[in-house]
Amino acid sequence: MPSRSIAEVGEFAFLASLVARVPRGRATIVGPGHDCAVVRSAGRSLLLTVDAMVEGVHFDRDWLSPRQIGCKSFLVNASDVAAMGGRPTACVVSVGVPATYRARDLSDLQAGVVAAARAVGASVVGGNLSRARQLFVSIALLADAPPRIVTRRGARPGDFVYVTGTLGDAALAVRLLQQRRPRSRPVPAAVLRRFREPAPRLRAGRVLVASGLVSAMIDVSDGLVQDLGHLCGQSRVGAVIRAATVPRSRAYCLHAGAGDTLALHGGEDYELLCTVPKRHVKRLQRAQRRLGCRITCIGEITAERGICVVDASGQPMRLAAGGFDHFRDRD
Amino acid sequence: MPSRSIAEVGEFAFLASLVARVPRGRATIVGPGHDCAVVRSAGRSLLLTVDAMVEGVHFDRDWLSPRQIGCKSFLVNASDVAAMGGRPTACVVSVGVPATYRARDLSDLQAGVVAAARAVGASVVGGNLSRARQLFVSIALLADAPPRIVTRRGARPGDFVYVTGTLGDAALAVRLLQQRRPRSRPVPAAVLRRFREPAPRLRAGRVLVASGLVSAMIDVSDGLVQDLGHLCGQSRVGAVIRAATVPRSRAYCLHAGAGDTLALHGGEDYELLCTVPKRHVKRLQRAQRRLGCRITCIGEITAERGICVVDASGQPMRLAAGGFDHFRDRD
Repeated sequence: MPSRSIAEVGEFAFLASLVARVPRGRATIVGPGHDCAVVRSAGRSLLLTVDAMVEGVHFDRDWLSPRQIGCKSFLVNASDVAAMGGRPTACVVSVGVPATYRARDLSDLQAGVVAAARAVGASVVGGNLSRARQLFVSIALLADAPPRIVTRRGARPGDFVYVTGTLGDAALAVRLLQQRRPRSRPVPAAVLRRFREPAPRLRAGRVLVASGLVSAMIDVSDGLVQDLGHLCGQSRVGAVIRAATVPRSRAYCLHAGAGDTLALHGGEDYELLCTVPKRHVKRLQRAQRRLGCRITCIGEITAERGICVVDASGQPMRLAAGGFDHFRDRD
Repeated sequence: MPSRSIAEVGEFAFLASLVARVPRGRATIVGPGHDCAVVRSAGRSLLLTVDAMVEGVHFDRDWLSPRQIGCKSFLVNASDVAAMGGRPTACVVSVGVPATYRARDLSDLQAGVVAAARAVGASVVGGNLSRARQLFVSIALLADAPPRIVTRRGARPGDFVYVTGTLGDAALAVRLLQQRRPRSRPVPAAVLRRFREPAPRLRAGRVLVASGLVSAMIDVSDGLVQDLGHLCGQSRVGAVIRAATVPRSRAYCLHAGAGDTLALHGGEDYELLCTVPKRHVKRLQRAQRRLGCRITCIGEITAERGICVVDASGQPMRLAAGGFDHFRDRD
């Protein structure tokens, strides 16, 4: 890639090439390319992950209060830990703000991080503050690893594809916020909450990993089709998804309109997407009560590569958008 | 602080108020306010730190190559680990770049991080890429903690103040880069290297901590007077520094001019500043060979608060600038 921009190369193609060139160190058990790294330190396994939220890319300041920005910056990291079945312990927070940013707002943002961390038993242990032209919050989260490591890599043809909770609400909230006009109706609270205060599936993640039921797992942050693509890419398999079975909330069905495909490719759901070998399906049904949320079978892993979404009549659907690419979407 | 901006409150006053309000979690041994946090995870102590470099604040793109940006972003974190006597193990890298940024440059930046990590036995284990209006690199670094923890908090009146290496070169490089005109002489290589490729004092930090010689330690990143102020503030003491004893490189003496005070308040030296109880001074002299660098006594800790810099005749000096404040300096 001689002098092409990142936008021209594409975020994920570029990342894949980067990841391939990172050498594996003595401390690395699982390196880049998964929801969390697994690191060997002082004889024990730890999870480490990082995620950033940037103003104008992930949010606008009138969409989220400073406290919500702080909260959500933590929760998107906790979701990565959930996807590996871990238990968050400590985080460090790197913030960039314009010099004109109000001190009170930054205090509120910090309070949001602290509260979100505390709610899942973790602590804020350090940070860094820098001036920047646009607000950004980058959080690195450390977590205790489960005894068994599940990554994006273990899916096998014939495994069923499951997803927790419901999909599409957060992306619907973003669409409604973008379309908002001075006298338009307020964005429905149930939908807005899913965008503003995602609830990472930490408990479900731990149960699914500890019980040995899942062969691969990822959190849905960039949209179902795209994240399933990452999982299948790492596992060198494909998948068929039945669109009609993808779980949608009542609010989503009411406000998105019939035939809307946001639940298939919209981002920021922070649900868990996992693959379950057929022989474990009965045990999964029995474990369901312990997950703390619903879990729905939406398709199957195939030997043939690529993600195929089929409609109720079994016909392949063509989706309008392929998921969130930082360098091509929004501004 | 009702609606004042961060610039009005001042970076460090604001940070102190933030740090005071972070609750201590079950995993926290040393929380915010030191070079690294010390975290208890899976029964062992770990160091965790985060630092960011932002374009237009910490560097201009024509001052550092992409590879140097990556390298330096890692090294400033390694310097925090050095100040706690730790051993870097793994890092995660969060990068924000404009969509027009060249893919090749981002590859080079990444290669810089990987190379710098490798050189000190650490690995890059994960990352995050986001679009942003200005380039930023935020790295969180995990390290093995030494058995004994030294923070900024243990300095006692009567302790001697020591600093490794020489001070002022990096700040001199920045000044010369800023003053550069089309036909001006190139910035001297020896000075420029100190800005572009800081050499964190990992070995010296480990020896100083492991040998039990130092009562408090910090790395000099924001300037001697300011960082000594942080150390003294945390230790609830003051210090007297003899300006003439502050070690300066030959290149600095040649190019900064006599009477220049950059070595006292300029930033980005990444040397170690530590306090040594009088009874340990002889042992420190014997240990010097093992540090891998010179170490110089520049003053003494006092019970009276505040930092007093005295000239060769013992008269207090007034310094032009108080060190680097992200929200008041440059741009």
